[in-house]
Amino acid sequence: MQFDINQFVPGHSVDCVILSFDNEGLKVLVMKWKGPEMFCLPGGFIRKEEDLDKAAVRVLLERAGIDLPFLEQFSTFGRADRRDDSSLAHNIKMLKLPKATMQWFEQRFITTGFLSLVDRNKCNPKPDLMSESIGWYTIEELPNLIYDHRSIVEEAIQYIRNQINYLPIGITLLPEKFTMKELQHLYESILERKLDRGNFQRKMLKLGIFNRHEKQLEGGAHKAPYLYSFDREKYQNLLEKGIGFVS
Amino acid sequence: MQFDINQFVPGHSVDCVILSFDNEGLKVLVMKWKGPEMFCLPGGFIRKEEDLDKAAVRVLLERAGIDLPFLEQFSTFGRADRRDDSSLAHNIKMLKLPKATMQWFEQRFITTGFLSLVDRNKCNPKPDLMSESIGWYTIEELPNLIYDHRSIVEEAIQYIRNQINYLPIGITLLPEKFTMKELQHLYESILERKLDRGNFQRKMLKLGIFNRHEKQLEGGAHKAPYLYSFDREKYQNLLEKGIGFVS
Repeated sequence: MQFDINQFVPGHSVDCVILSFDNEGLKVLVMKWKGPEMFCLPGGFIRKEEDLDKAAVRVLLERAGIDLPFLEQFSTFGRADRRDDSSLAHNIKMLKLPKATMQWFEQRFITTGFLSLVDRNKCNPKPDLMSESIGWYTIEELPNLIYDHRSIVEEAIQYIRNQINYLPIGITLLPEKFTMKELQHLYESILERKLDRGNFQRKMLKLGIFNRHEKQLEGGAHKAPYLYSFDREKYQNLLEKGIGFVS
Repeated sequence: MQFDINQFVPGHSVDCVILSFDNEGLKVLVMKWKGPEMFCLPGGFIRKEEDLDKAAVRVLLERAGIDLPFLEQFSTFGRADRRDDSSLAHNIKMLKLPKATMQWFEQRFITTGFLSLVDRNKCNPKPDLMSESIGWYTIEELPNLIYDHRSIVEEAIQYIRNQINYLPIGITLLPEKFTMKELQHLYESILERKLDRGNFQRKMLKLGIFNRHEKQLEGGAHKAPYLYSFDREKYQNLLEKGIGFVS
């Protein structure tokens, strides 16, 4: 591992929770290390002259090949024991890193969590040199993550749940065109509860932020659901006041 | 200044935005250093074995004499230039600190902001040994604060504004008994806009979270406003769902 510790601020890291959505539900981007059976969020360190939020953007690009202009900071994780993990310490020892690098990794780190919601179809993560693979996992199927990364994921989802009326949930996570059923599934995945279908559609459509598209003519076309897209301007205006949909 | 830098995590600090409310509006707790004309938030460092959130609680107690069980983390400030301030550097040099202590202060710090809303009548801040005074300032009358402390204050208030339906604004900031006019003034101070009186009272009272108390019998008593207090249980239950009052 080529890694010049002198370039970086000691003791502080960033970790990215990148969420996407498909028909299996909400998914989080997780990397698998080369060698030991260890899974983690895409994360890294802050250059000495670099702003914290810019570090998150760079780290995500370098580690996962995802280029986003902005990531949202949601919380900083500073438990003194957040990186205590004896089996992990053993695995890291097996990597036979230079002594100074070992000491770097062994110091206490406070980490700031950043998140982004991405459209699965526009986002092709690639593993970096340190990683064997990178992929999307549903929350139920998350592998064991190192350190406190699982609670970082959970806190990110909690944050989105709390902010559901103020974050551009639909417009970032869904493809350009979607059905009301898909939109409802998205909200249900985040809220982790079922919503009443009639009620959901009525309230959503009342917001006046959708364009409705022609049904595709197919066999049994009258049964095909309408496809919708967001009216970006109306969506953005409403978002500023809060899409006061879920209460 | 007695200060053993070896006890602390390098490069990371905590700063506390403590807000109270009185008839002049929302106020923030600010300390003035002994000697140079410098004002700052109560802040400090994290002990090597100490959790980040516990550090905030200890720092607030040590520096401001305020003992709170919990402070809410709202954001971490990590601009690389957040502590660049040549006049401040000059003032710090005048303090003639030991060289190692100087170097400690000159390193880059990332700081995590914590906030709390307190009842002015139950909270008596006292300055620590490093400070000449500590006091409450309205946002309009804030003195020049060091570093990025002013934007830390502004971001704290923005956070409260965004969370106004989910934070226990009234129950923490107001005295036990209050008038609807005081409650409205509190909301107006946070939102920085006027609210319609009739509309405010009607919506608030509809929430069913208040106890109404007998008017004090005085001269012209029929004109005296009703005093209210919060029904703590109902308030708490509603808060979990969001006091969906402001939209």
